[in-house]
Amino acid sequence: MSYFDAASAAPLHPVARQALLASLDEGWADPARLYREGRRARLLLDAARETAAELVGCRPDEVVFTSSGTRAVHSGIAGALAGRRRAGRHLIVSAVEHSSVLHAAEVHEAGGGPVTRVAVDRTGAVAPEAYAAALRPDTALACLQSANHEVGTEQPVAEVAEACRAAGVPLLVDAAQSLGWGRVGGDWSLLAASAHKWGGPSGVGLLVVRKGVRFAPQGPADERESGRAAGFENIPAIVAAAASLRAVRAEAAEEAARLRELTERIRARVPELVPDVEVVGDPVRRLPGVVTFSCLYVDGEALLHELDRAGFSVSSGSSCTSSTLTPSHVLKAMGVLSEGNVRVSLPPGTPAEDVERFLAALPDAVAGVREKLGAPAPAAAVREGALVVDAVGKLCPVPVIELAKVIGDVPVGGTVRVLADDEAARLDIPAWCAMRGQEYVGEEPADRGCAFTVRRLS
Amino acid sequence: MSYFDAASAAPLHPVARQALLASLDEGWADPARLYREGRRARLLLDAARETAAELVGCRPDEVVFTSSGTRAVHSGIAGALAGRRRAGRHLIVSAVEHSSVLHAAEVHEAGGGPVTRVAVDRTGAVAPEAYAAALRPDTALACLQSANHEVGTEQPVAEVAEACRAAGVPLLVDAAQSLGWGRVGGDWSLLAASAHKWGGPSGVGLLVVRKGVRFAPQGPADERESGRAAGFENIPAIVAAAASLRAVRAEAAEEAARLRELTERIRARVPELVPDVEVVGDPVRRLPGVVTFSCLYVDGEALLHELDRAGFSVSSGSSCTSSTLTPSHVLKAMGVLSEGNVRVSLPPGTPAEDVERFLAALPDAVAGVREKLGAPAPAAAVREGALVVDAVGKLCPVPVIELAKVIGDVPVGGTVRVLADDEAARLDIPAWCAMRGQEYVGEEPADRGCAFTVRRLS
Repeated sequence: MSYFDAASAAPLHPVARQALLASLDEGWADPARLYREGRRARLLLDAARETAAELVGCRPDEVVFTSSGTRAVHSGIAGALAGRRRAGRHLIVSAVEHSSVLHAAEVHEAGGGPVTRVAVDRTGAVAPEAYAAALRPDTALACLQSANHEVGTEQPVAEVAEACRAAGVPLLVDAAQSLGWGRVGGDWSLLAASAHKWGGPSGVGLLVVRKGVRFAPQGPADERESGRAAGFENIPAIVAAAASLRAVRAEAAEEAARLRELTERIRARVPELVPDVEVVGDPVRRLPGVVTFSCLYVDGEALLHELDRAGFSVSSGSSCTSSTLTPSHVLKAMGVLSEGNVRVSLPPGTPAEDVERFLAALPDAVAGVREKLGAPAPAAAVREGALVVDAVGKLCPVPVIELAKVIGDVPVGGTVRVLADDEAARLDIPAWCAMRGQEYVGEEPADRGCAFTVRRLS
Repeated sequence: MSYFDAASAAPLHPVARQALLASLDEGWADPARLYREGRRARLLLDAARETAAELVGCRPDEVVFTSSGTRAVHSGIAGALAGRRRAGRHLIVSAVEHSSVLHAAEVHEAGGGPVTRVAVDRTGAVAPEAYAAALRPDTALACLQSANHEVGTEQPVAEVAEACRAAGVPLLVDAAQSLGWGRVGGDWSLLAASAHKWGGPSGVGLLVVRKGVRFAPQGPADERESGRAAGFENIPAIVAAAASLRAVRAEAAEEAARLRELTERIRARVPELVPDVEVVGDPVRRLPGVVTFSCLYVDGEALLHELDRAGFSVSSGSSCTSSTLTPSHVLKAMGVLSEGNVRVSLPPGTPAEDVERFLAALPDAVAGVREKLGAPAPAAAVREGALVVDAVGKLCPVPVIELAKVIGDVPVGGTVRVLADDEAARLDIPAWCAMRGQEYVGEEPADRGCAFTVRRLS
């Protein structure tokens, strides 16, 4: 079995396991107590805080341990917004942030706070100038991830931090995907991260608030963690988190180079091995272990099952794999194909042979799903003098499959209309046009769903 | 070393340790994922939820795992208040709840929500009738602990739950101190608890929301745990928490009887061994392992240090041991002596010999502290024809010591005024009067602090 979903959760690092075991016996007591078990727990907590600070590149008293990365993001955004209430309420996020950031922004918006979502280009990156242009006199906080969790694209954090600093606006960096690889450069103000992304245990997040940043913790008061993270400290897990961060950092440079070769190979080979594939994300400025691609005419969930059966654990941003049946907001913001989407994120230590086995298994897995889906006859009908494909009620990737089946019947220069009510069609029909060299004319409301018009160019 | 502070945190139960180790390898992946590591994690999570539900006495889909007991309380109160917004905003708590409940109530109050704090008697218990009388047509939620964390007194949860049910008001029970000993009886609506109180690992809380209870989770949306606890599930710790709850429950009846004997012995022997001691809390309706007493003329922090040196880890509700230099709100609400306060809370398995050693060491520890504090000469001066003790600027237990030193100079029937600005004096001077058979006349504001008037009766 090859686990290729390190961007969701990395298996526990051996050093984390060892540190966790050792501190289960030493770190269970209340570090606020004056007796020896309490003092011992306090020493462990202080040492872990110093380690984390050194690896983040900040002061120990700027580090708060939270119960998860999500909690670090939620608390960081709420505290920074409240601390900057006098400056204004405007919040900036990129359109491709992790859902924890976007959901915090939604809560702020529901409470009447204005939110700007900065768009990204087709690689998933924000342009520093576009981000800077979103800054306003009433901007309270700006948020930007260090690298994207779905496509691996690195964001221009240092440039954006500089623009924010010039405008006097604190920048919160969600460093969940990159902290294991190295410090986040640039003059940021707040940082959030999650231990189980770097091989630490679940249950530990990191919130860093630089000295001088106005911060007002929200929610009920609690004395622990400088009043910034309520609840009894999970010291064994915190110790393990700090120890494993140190361990992965020691191996980071070498391992990054190795994984980068492996993902480079996937990026290069997949389009050669599998027809009708779009590899997405920045080819150069990207995380070492992440590569993402989408396969036309493929159902993402079915492909995940095929790959799971073949012994590979990957994730997908296709609509069929989400509980809301909408494509990933990241793929949507990038405007790339969402059907048959696969994210491969290699954990440190992944053997090269596993990647070769994956490349050997993928073509059959894709072909198998395509064959199953290819069966239905196109529901094409001529109406109002133009070709119309009625794919209403059909889910991704069927509307695109049916479009592909009839395009040969359209005269060059003529158009075909696809009626569809699946959310993914809005993304995947234009993406198919771009991949196939056809013209996407636009969409208009129809009786049920939308009508998407495509002109045949060749 | 004898650790007698199980009410703060219990050492990890061997079963918890074993379960944690086993599930570190099986439960680290994202349970929301479709591949095998994810499915395996989901199975572990589901099994732990079923175990917890069985031991709580509820349905599995009523159980939410949170990152701490504090978080369970905060989320439970916020969600229940929001869910009942239409009924009103009135919140009822007892005056002796855990700080997590009281801090949640303060946030509600700061937002304009009315809060009633139900008083307790001298044993620390609420009267069911008094609690019922606090219910109003606009009451959204009522909160009551199953047993008090500082003095061990059990609350009449079943009676209060019945009154709440009759009024159509949900009752949230903070069962942190008692869940390891057994199910919470009565028809409650919500329940919160914390795994590290029953020998589970840190980082796991339990929030139970009965079907039919209106509940609107607050904060940013998150799909995990039915939308009621944001952040990646800490499955190894959750598995360990459930396993250890089952283990301690299997031993609960026998161990409760044994610990009850030991704490009964402490309750009986301490007043015989140490002069001027008040044992507090209900002598009968109480937790098996908790016993609390206060020693006149003793500085709580100094006593804790003496006991720590003698090899005993206990906690204290005295003002000198709190970061805010105020006595514990529980002792305050009970109106009992707060100086020289000691809480002994025995973990399951405590050997009887350890308790005997504690009883042997305590008299010297108390005498040592008293001797050190007894040195200062009384700062008494006659003014306005009445005896006045100026203890302004002196901290607990000095004002009471100085009062005790001059009472012999007061004619029977005459009064003495103690000037003090230490918060603990308000509690400890009346408590001293009650213990010594003198009359506490009352307090009035003075230039600095307050003047407390005491009449000598004998």
